[in-house]
Amino acid sequence: MSSLPRMYSIRGVIGLKSILQMARTLITESVNKIGEEVSLMGWVNIVRDHGKITFIDLYDRSGTIQIVGQGEDFHTLRPQFVIRVIGTVNKRPSHMVNDKIPTGTVEIKAKSIEVISKSEELPFDITKEELDLELPTLLDFRGLTLRHPKVKAIFKVQEVIIDAFRQSLKEKDFTEFQAPVIIPQGAEGGAEMFEISYFKYKAFLAQSPQFYKQILVGVFERVFAVNKTLRAEPSVTTRHLTEVTTLDAEFGFIESWQDVMDISEYVIKFIFQRVAKECVEELKMFNAAVPIVSDKIPQIKLRDAQEIIFKRTGRDVKKEPDLSPEDEKEICKWAHVEKGSELVFVSHFPTAKRPFYTQPDPEDPEFTLGFDMLGRGTEWLTGGQRINDLQTLIKNAKERNIDLEKSALYLQAFKFGMPPEGGFSFGSERITMHILGLKNIREASLFPRDMERVDVRLSTLKNNVDIKPKKKK
Amino acid sequence: MSSLPRMYSIRGVIGLKSILQMARTLITESVNKIGEEVSLMGWVNIVRDHGKITFIDLYDRSGTIQIVGQGEDFHTLRPQFVIRVIGTVNKRPSHMVNDKIPTGTVEIKAKSIEVISKSEELPFDITKEELDLELPTLLDFRGLTLRHPKVKAIFKVQEVIIDAFRQSLKEKDFTEFQAPVIIPQGAEGGAEMFEISYFKYKAFLAQSPQFYKQILVGVFERVFAVNKTLRAEPSVTTRHLTEVTTLDAEFGFIESWQDVMDISEYVIKFIFQRVAKECVEELKMFNAAVPIVSDKIPQIKLRDAQEIIFKRTGRDVKKEPDLSPEDEKEICKWAHVEKGSELVFVSHFPTAKRPFYTQPDPEDPEFTLGFDMLGRGTEWLTGGQRINDLQTLIKNAKERNIDLEKSALYLQAFKFGMPPEGGFSFGSERITMHILGLKNIREASLFPRDMERVDVRLSTLKNNVDIKPKKKK
Repeated sequence: MSSLPRMYSIRGVIGLKSILQMARTLITESVNKIGEEVSLMGWVNIVRDHGKITFIDLYDRSGTIQIVGQGEDFHTLRPQFVIRVIGTVNKRPSHMVNDKIPTGTVEIKAKSIEVISKSEELPFDITKEELDLELPTLLDFRGLTLRHPKVKAIFKVQEVIIDAFRQSLKEKDFTEFQAPVIIPQGAEGGAEMFEISYFKYKAFLAQSPQFYKQILVGVFERVFAVNKTLRAEPSVTTRHLTEVTTLDAEFGFIESWQDVMDISEYVIKFIFQRVAKECVEELKMFNAAVPIVSDKIPQIKLRDAQEIIFKRTGRDVKKEPDLSPEDEKEICKWAHVEKGSELVFVSHFPTAKRPFYTQPDPEDPEFTLGFDMLGRGTEWLTGGQRINDLQTLIKNAKERNIDLEKSALYLQAFKFGMPPEGGFSFGSERITMHILGLKNIREASLFPRDMERVDVRLSTLKNNVDIKPKKKK
Repeated sequence: MSSLPRMYSIRGVIGLKSILQMARTLITESVNKIGEEVSLMGWVNIVRDHGKITFIDLYDRSGTIQIVGQGEDFHTLRPQFVIRVIGTVNKRPSHMVNDKIPTGTVEIKAKSIEVISKSEELPFDITKEELDLELPTLLDFRGLTLRHPKVKAIFKVQEVIIDAFRQSLKEKDFTEFQAPVIIPQGAEGGAEMFEISYFKYKAFLAQSPQFYKQILVGVFERVFAVNKTLRAEPSVTTRHLTEVTTLDAEFGFIESWQDVMDISEYVIKFIFQRVAKECVEELKMFNAAVPIVSDKIPQIKLRDAQEIIFKRTGRDVKKEPDLSPEDEKEICKWAHVEKGSELVFVSHFPTAKRPFYTQPDPEDPEFTLGFDMLGRGTEWLTGGQRINDLQTLIKNAKERNIDLEKSALYLQAFKFGMPPEGGFSFGSERITMHILGLKNIREASLFPRDMERVDVRLSTLKNNVDIKPKKKK
């Protein structure tokens, strides 16, 4: 191995104007440059010091490659150092090929090396296949743990889910819109909303873009939004976050509420197809697969679901207004075993328990034309047909103590001609979690927020406790 | 004209299960169905009653078409009624062709009509080419005014801008992420942030995803986000909103800050190309065109810009730390006339006036490697290279009274190896406004929020005045 020129230098703050000015090659591109000299940049993942020779696993956004280096400069490298390597792409002998990575047929014989940015010693080993950390540690070191391939993979999958959601609806002529965050009051009457001091007024953070997507059906007929929704969830569970990236759709001129289920089924299947196709490696890491769904996802009314649960388990929940987590698991099991589908629609929840704008079934007004889509034991998506008659909306809103003045813009849309319409909504974190089989929804959020954490653990902050006693809403 | 069957009926709340069950034809599809019977659904725009014969302009999401009807049912129709029309597609005689619309070669001879949803009488005529309303009225009736073709067109253009932003960066290997709304403190030290009561703690609404996009450079190298940012702007101007849909990008391994300008230039030009191509009709409505840009957008330092202003106008602003609105107009004029570009980069603003993470120019540390892109007399976009050295960041943060504890996650990213990086940010409303030549930024937001309005005018609401005096931050 040839001697290394002593180019080692700490490049600090200003760019990368190397003496050589050689254009960067992305790591995966090097397989096409055998015999050529390349300049690679990335992070050191692993340093294997064999005395005279050092092997480095270097990664960038495209992949990982093995660097073979010689000389004392290499002994100073540590994990997460950002470096530039200039060297020659060599073909590996066939018995040395690494099948596990796309660049496994080559390695880089380093000629020179430059440290661009150093790293402190890592608090834990991030080179293991499984990070295997407790959740608080995973989140306390988020800027580091996100760099682990398996953690990063979660957000690759999430990116595909969100992009597929948009694509599926654009193909059906939906218009994308940006939903407000600050609202005068909640769509569901005020429970668990964050209140903000808005100049000299009160305002709230949106739990949902419900009112706005309905208004826009009157404008564009078919709309969707990818937006942040905020909920002051006063409980710390594995399923709830205070900040969620929600995927919402709404559309008019439906023939019946069946159209709403059909479009939501189409969207979910579209997402599954793209994830299955584009996230092969990511799914493999989690030993996961997108859910198996039947040609047509089974549809069942709440009362029939409860009857099935009674028959299967002897548990009588036939008068309950909703499914308990245990019930949801049971009905998913039934759909999977009996209907060959890991997803199932449950409809006709009691009108009294659903939001004021939900359409009751004209044949049985105690129950609504609203539905949940359940999968793998829990709720994935919720939707339904809405009331599009102004007087009925006003009557319902009054009964639920919804402020008509603050809802003026919403109600206005129904004064001026609104077709029959419906829509649905689901959280990107929850679907990511369920596709990959994550145990806690926090793992499916880049920077999860809950009662106890906003980036950092709130209880550990000095001078942060609000001196005012918390007001009742 | 044949007699009309009496099928007139008010269909209310439940779907559209017509007796005929004929599948809906979109209005623009009818030109391919000459001689066929079709079922159209949409909103009545104009009713022209010629006594025996009534002409209706019907529109849906695809376009507008003329309906020819006979009989008393037609006399009851009013603007914004949602109706279903069944009729035959007839070719118009050549002297009757309407060149202005794509369906102008045909008309529908109505056989039956069904009112799906009625409309109250409209508070103003929305069939005029220009709505011509005062801004408060435009916003007080947002659910209706958004239905005007020229208002709707604004958001078609905005949708294309946002989609083009995403596409341009995906083609350059950027990863999309979802930025947080709730944050422990601001990236710029706390000015003009909305405070929220977060369980028993205080938190704030994000003015920018700055910290998060920088953290993620350490994870994905190249990232972008479309996200809501919130600013407690205490002034009511034509240029500011409290809620903005911001387009943010950030990327590592830059050779110099020049790369950041280059990518922002690429993105803006990409957006212009798609808007020019896909929004021909919309641009025509506003008599607007995307800005003319030179092959390479001119780049100029603040002090040189001020020198130019002095030479052109005699106004001496050479010691000012920033450009005034008047200065911005002058330098845009200079770039347009002298450099053939409606856009211009101005760089090297004083370090003291830029955020703590902005990279000073090593050759002149009083000024930063940060830039604004100006166009048509005002700021469009801001960006620059960031400091990627932990100790410098900590020093600067302390000087600006930034809470290090609350910034722990941000600073952590720089402990573990961070390449030289930079990025940029711009508001989707502002670029929409400037492309279309709108007078007020509120017109470029579906549901604009400012000091005085969140959907409705806050001052008109009862029981909404916050009884607590506003605290100083």
